[in-house]
Amino acid sequence: MLHSVIMAGGSGTRFWPLSRQMFPKQFLTLQGNRSLIQQAFDRCQPWIPPECCWVVTAERLAELTRKDLPLISDARILQEPAARNTAPCIGLAALCLEAIDPEATMLVIPADQVISDLLAFENDVRRAERLVTDDPERLVLFGVPPSYPATGFGYIERGNPLGPAGYEVASFREKPDRTTAESYLQTGTFYWNCGIFVWKSRRILQALARHEPAISAGLEALRPHLGQPTFQTALAEIFPTMTSVSIDYAVLEREKNIAVLAASFSWDDVGGWEALTRLLPPDANGNVVLGQAACVDSQDCIVRSTDTHVVTLLGVKNCIVVQTPDATLVAQRGDDEAIRKVIAALKEQGFDRYL
Amino acid sequence: MLHSVIMAGGSGTRFWPLSRQMFPKQFLTLQGNRSLIQQAFDRCQPWIPPECCWVVTAERLAELTRKDLPLISDARILQEPAARNTAPCIGLAALCLEAIDPEATMLVIPADQVISDLLAFENDVRRAERLVTDDPERLVLFGVPPSYPATGFGYIERGNPLGPAGYEVASFREKPDRTTAESYLQTGTFYWNCGIFVWKSRRILQALARHEPAISAGLEALRPHLGQPTFQTALAEIFPTMTSVSIDYAVLEREKNIAVLAASFSWDDVGGWEALTRLLPPDANGNVVLGQAACVDSQDCIVRSTDTHVVTLLGVKNCIVVQTPDATLVAQRGDDEAIRKVIAALKEQGFDRYL
Repeated sequence: MLHSVIMAGGSGTRFWPLSRQMFPKQFLTLQGNRSLIQQAFDRCQPWIPPECCWVVTAERLAELTRKDLPLISDARILQEPAARNTAPCIGLAALCLEAIDPEATMLVIPADQVISDLLAFENDVRRAERLVTDDPERLVLFGVPPSYPATGFGYIERGNPLGPAGYEVASFREKPDRTTAESYLQTGTFYWNCGIFVWKSRRILQALARHEPAISAGLEALRPHLGQPTFQTALAEIFPTMTSVSIDYAVLEREKNIAVLAASFSWDDVGGWEALTRLLPPDANGNVVLGQAACVDSQDCIVRSTDTHVVTLLGVKNCIVVQTPDATLVAQRGDDEAIRKVIAALKEQGFDRYL
Repeated sequence: MLHSVIMAGGSGTRFWPLSRQMFPKQFLTLQGNRSLIQQAFDRCQPWIPPECCWVVTAERLAELTRKDLPLISDARILQEPAARNTAPCIGLAALCLEAIDPEATMLVIPADQVISDLLAFENDVRRAERLVTDDPERLVLFGVPPSYPATGFGYIERGNPLGPAGYEVASFREKPDRTTAESYLQTGTFYWNCGIFVWKSRRILQALARHEPAISAGLEALRPHLGQPTFQTALAEIFPTMTSVSIDYAVLEREKNIAVLAASFSWDDVGGWEALTRLLPPDANGNVVLGQAACVDSQDCIVRSTDTHVVTLLGVKNCIVVQTPDATLVAQRGDDEAIRKVIAALKEQGFDRYL
């Protein structure tokens, strides 16, 4: 059976002040009326039934997750007692899946991305599943053909073709500098690593056992508690002992039998406020507005407000303005990463309560 | 006796979104803990006793006025049933004062200015009072020595000296263009007309009778209702029939015996958000903050927030950011007048409820 595992542990400073420690990015509704995590669930419906949909989230976010995804039963919402990056997260999901379905194939998807063309997505996942059926030892990644020389993503270099559907992975590349990113874009053999994976749960557990003994030992210690009332207590004790490491570093960059499949769906990591310019239509002056706003003599701005508040711009260009009931951000556009400086300044000034 | 008359009928779009139709500028607290109207009252204490302090405001603002000025009795808070500019406003106050004190001298001051050096203010008012005592037919204006070539004020040209304290008025000048304003500044014989006046109430009523028969007739029709329970009803009927005209145009520019007294206090009309840069100290990067803010890589901004909200700036220069619970303004600095465009846009977009 194909199961989906939605990774939803994000901390969410990128969309501050809309996202908060207690309300990270995956719960945001940036377009339409479904939050990002709801969209992650929706995009596998109906071809992955809800009983095969899993979410791994942080303990503190379990309630919000349940509220957003009422069709997923409590037993399918795994709660991390501590943040340990993606390897322990995926290991935990694989352990739970395997106990229920030893032959399970898992589709791992981040909770905070936007994917359009859902038919293409389903087809691509089917192709990935076939690659795994053909060779159950295979680990399949999705690669997004780059549309610009992005420096914020890791890249996957493709090698020999594996039939029409995919390629062997030739190499993984760290986030490149601009020049390198431009050369990746030119060659046409590099993809963005979008963090979407398909593999047998049994297979990823084996890989973790081989490369990350501390994670594997933790998972094995958890196994007797599966389906028991002691599970969450045991998890609270064991999970924090696992190595905090990404699945890419822990497994993918160390294994041989890795395939990359070029995504035919369109993908956006929604990495920060700039993403709104890709998700929402601009007005005649290039302003993108989510909520209520009046823009006077203003151009190329991104505005987020609510239905009970009006944001007004006057003579402003290239700005991001985000209003929430207790915090407002006004930023010059161009550097989504710089939001970290705001977070740091707020901490320094004792404004932690707004984080 | 010297009475003060605080003119507090302002409509207040200049400080939108902090000021509103139902909460105009005079009620704002922009520095310290006293609103502008409270400061107008305070600056005549204790040398004008509260029973000699009068306020003329709009009916809809009477409650706010009472709340801000609890020491002023209800009978001294005159409520205009309609906006009719300053001539009817001052005429109404003069009528009420004269009935109580036929020899009353009135100090007329706008409710929405900032005056520092209160001792100088008191001394200046005493000097003005003396000019009126010397010649009870005299109408005295305060002139503020210009500190820059302002184009937003009317100017008063001084003529022959009247002893050490003042000058005859040689002429009144409309708001000048930049070049003219520069020449006014150079000559040293021009003052800003700051709308502060001292005269006998009887005298200003005579002047209105001479130049504005419709206003005078209205006031005479009101006279029998003074101190009667019918007063407000009569006012509601009569006041709207009075000509809407400024005291400057109605009387001052038409009379001969006008004196100007050079203000030795420092004066600010608080004409818009730019005023905050004159009223509050900037931080090391030139940012002026009223309330809570974190400014990162930002310069020369004016920020207004509240104690339960934080405004954050990132890489922003020369901006005005004003946060209120239901409306936010983000404007490029440099043109306080342009706020009108925002008001117009809000009306056009059906956002009248935020005005």
